[in-house]
Amino acid sequence: MKVTVWNEYRHEKENPKVSEIYPDGIHQTIASFLGEEGHQTQTATLDEAEHGLTEEVLAETDVLVWWGHKVHEEVSEEIAERVKQRVLDGMGLVVLHSAHFSKVFKKLMGTGCDLKWREADEKERLWVVDPTHPITEGLGEYIELEKEEMYGEHFDIPAPDELVFVSWFEGGEVFRSGATFKRGRGKIFYFRPGHETYPTYHHKEIQQVIKNGVKWAANTNTPKHVYGNRQPLEKLSK
Amino acid sequence: MKVTVWNEYRHEKENPKVSEIYPDGIHQTIASFLGEEGHQTQTATLDEAEHGLTEEVLAETDVLVWWGHKVHEEVSEEIAERVKQRVLDGMGLVVLHSAHFSKVFKKLMGTGCDLKWREADEKERLWVVDPTHPITEGLGEYIELEKEEMYGEHFDIPAPDELVFVSWFEGGEVFRSGATFKRGRGKIFYFRPGHETYPTYHHKEIQQVIKNGVKWAANTNTPKHVYGNRQPLEKLSK
Amino acid sequence: MKVTVWNEYRHEKENPKVSEIYPDGIHQTIASFLGEEGHQTQTATLDEAEHGLTEEVLAETDVLVWWGHKVHEEVSEEIAERVKQRVLDGMGLVVLHSAHFSKVFKKLMGTGCDLKWREADEKERLWVVDPTHPITEGLGEYIELEKEEMYGEHFDIPAPDELVFVSWFEGGEVFRSGATFKRGRGKIFYFRPGHETYPTYHHKEIQQVIKNGVKWAANTNTPKHVYGNRQPLEKLSK
Amino acid sequence: MKVTVWNEYRHEKENPKVSEIYPDGIHQTIASFLGEEGHQTQTATLDEAEHGLTEEVLAETDVLVWWGHKVHEEVSEEIAERVKQRVLDGMGLVVLHSAHFSKVFKKLMGTGCDLKWREADEKERLWVVDPTHPITEGLGEYIELEKEEMYGEHFDIPAPDELVFVSWFEGGEVFRSGATFKRGRGKIFYFRPGHETYPTYHHKEIQQVIKNGVKWAANTNTPKHVYGNRQPLEKLSK
Repeated sequence: MKVTVWNEYRHEKENPKVSEIYPDGIHQTIASFLGEEGHQTQTATLDEAEHGLTEEVLAETDVLVWWGHKVHEEVSEEIAERVKQRVLDGMGLVVLHSAHFSKVFKKLMGTGCDLKWREADEKERLWVVDPTHPITEGLGEYIELEKEEMYGEHFDIPAPDELVFVSWFEGGEVFRSGATFKRGRGKIFYFRPGHETYPTYHHKEIQQVIKNGVKWAANTNTPKHVYGNRQPLEKLSK
Repeated sequence: MKVTVWNEYRHEKENPKVSEIYPDGIHQTIASFLGEEGHQTQTATLDEAEHGLTEEVLAETDVLVWWGHKVHEEVSEEIAERVKQRVLDGMGLVVLHSAHFSKVFKKLMGTGCDLKWREADEKERLWVVDPTHPITEGLGEYIELEKEEMYGEHFDIPAPDELVFVSWFEGGEVFRSGATFKRGRGKIFYFRPGHETYPTYHHKEIQQVIKNGVKWAANTNTPKHVYGNRQPLEKLSK
Repeated sequence: MKVTVWNEYRHEKENPKVSEIYPDGIHQTIASFLGEEGHQTQTATLDEAEHGLTEEVLAETDVLVWWGHKVHEEVSEEIAERVKQRVLDGMGLVVLHSAHFSKVFKKLMGTGCDLKWREADEKERLWVVDPTHPITEGLGEYIELEKEEMYGEHFDIPAPDELVFVSWFEGGEVFRSGATFKRGRGKIFYFRPGHETYPTYHHKEIQQVIKNGVKWAANTNTPKHVYGNRQPLEKLSK
Repeated sequence: MKVTVWNEYRHEKENPKVSEIYPDGIHQTIASFLGEEGHQTQTATLDEAEHGLTEEVLAETDVLVWWGHKVHEEVSEEIAERVKQRVLDGMGLVVLHSAHFSKVFKKLMGTGCDLKWREADEKERLWVVDPTHPITEGLGEYIELEKEEMYGEHFDIPAPDELVFVSWFEGGEVFRSGATFKRGRGKIFYFRPGHETYPTYHHKEIQQVIKNGVKWAANTNTPKHVYGNRQPLEKLSK
């Protein structure tokens, strides 16, 4: 399977606190542990030509992992639309943390995708609420993160096709932290954790979920439908 | 309840076959039977200023009914976005027939919304598959239409929140003909029948479904969520 | 609308702490505030003949509200099956708190319906996660209960048709506290709060939710399907 | 993966028309093509001791395939309950054709599971309505069966978690022919075709769907939740 990990890659260049945790960027950390699964991984970042997401790159990508945060608006309309179309054509998409506000995710959801947030070194506990889901493979009943940014409801998304995790936060909020959506031939997994100032993507269980999510999101040679004007399959009475 | 019925209103001016069935336009026919329910109805059409959908009109509208077909592209991006936002803010939306391809519906769905189609005077039978749904109030097991345009699967929409009707067509296709979606605070009902060359909107059961759909789609003073940076509701441990 | 409120009615007779809060029983408190809505209300309890749920009572009931806790096993198999069938035939059902473990709810869900629990005077905050839902009419973003029993995930139910509330608990758990299900022609609303030693059913917002739930659960004259061997509706080719 | 194929195995012994198509029984035909996938397959039938479904057999089974039709009532309550519990514990279940009326399926659904039917050598066309689903791997837009029994809506099941196929029948009906459900830790796939007097299970695409369904239904080491009274995970304020 071919996996492309996309990162805005700005915080790491501007904030020493972030570059200390992710010296080569969040994308490299994620690509690295996904490589352990035997996937063929590559990375792409905002400041590359076409944000690293040329037609060729996308055509070759089975699953795209997306992390963005502070400059969603710098992603060009054209590339955002291109990624969306590729998802509808069957590319899997794993949307991480603040990418809830990315152009691609918002286009695919059709809603505002807004939420409550707070940076206060809070404890987060992600409860598994769907114990049949392959995305929870190898986990216990919950994942605990000592310090994370808080995201709180209401999370302005369509009702997920499947709700996998619900988070508890110390400050009194809850959040639908793991949710799946289908759009066209594409499968989408949104997963909440991963604020840039915490070592969340070094956490083994978080890595496990992202590995599981990538595996789940890959399309398995499902039908390609034909649209438009069609002749009848049966003889009409008139 | 205040209901606005929007119509492209072009076929009726250009095709005598259509104007014979709907002399005052599809919108007037629909507004007329919705008025029987005691709703305060008004109409709006493409060629009016701002397509008849000013901020004021939308702010006052509880449920918007939308019919469009041949010139979806003439709906301005700005107005389409405005309608979408108003739906997210809580306005109900009833999307009829070929409005599956309207800008508003596509923006709210996030998918291509394409389908198969054929104009061949075919019989359609809409089976009720959710006999709990208030949109089916007063109906029998199915609705039969002697002649309609065929719409066939795959219908490229997200999995509906609720699937209410599935159509059988003479030529061998099926279609998810009645489906509901929630987006933001807004409720959306897509209902398939209503090709302009057939008297479908004069059909009593079709009228019943649209009446039911309007009633269902109206928001009932539900919570307005607050988004953005928030203080904790509980004392944090650090 | 005719509403029947069913209660086990044992705690109130045996525990002074409970009878102090609900001198006439939980059922009377609930029936009383539902009466404010103009519904015709009646009550039924475990120790009555047929648990107060004769064929006649059920046939006349539009929505049944169910509270039970400590002696679910004393509900006869026959009556539980009768109530289930009546739900499938179109009676609405509002299942409160520990009735998650009632025979009727378990039969309708097909799962174990188990959960985690703790009695520790904890704060509960029920967040609205579906701001389109009529069950949330008149509410704010969340409901806060100073002291309640904790119910925690995993809640062993099928994925709800609609998830309306998610609870946060002081001790670190979350719970899908408001959920809807459709079975046959019947609509079911499960609502978590209401441990017998707290004055939860005197809380105005909790009362509002139950009022909304009853209104939502009532069937609106939807189709009654016919089953079994049927003649073709179209001419077969052979 | 260990797969057990259960069959009532009565028609084949009593009706030469059936035994001609399935000389060793429907179970052997299914077990045979599932074996091609590298699964370790075994069969079990009604007339064996404990219907061939001892605690040991079930404990070792990853996915159970179930075909039954005319003597659902001969399946003992105890074994039906045992199978249900094993599904809730994580065994996958593929329910074929007339097993919609099996005790196990009805217990897991909580509804009547009834439908319309007709034996009239009708054409069935199963349309794929979820082109993301791994159960549709390797298929085209639809599967066509020249002659099958008709099953028509309303199919009295809960709204499926995922709707994969919708059937068109020559006589004018439609049916939700492929549907998935999750119960406890178990995944369930209902698939309509397979009347005993037609060679449906010799059809390559039908075999493909059942192979896909078995693969999809297998649990992948997901969390086992703990229920009951639990200590708080966080320090309570009182």
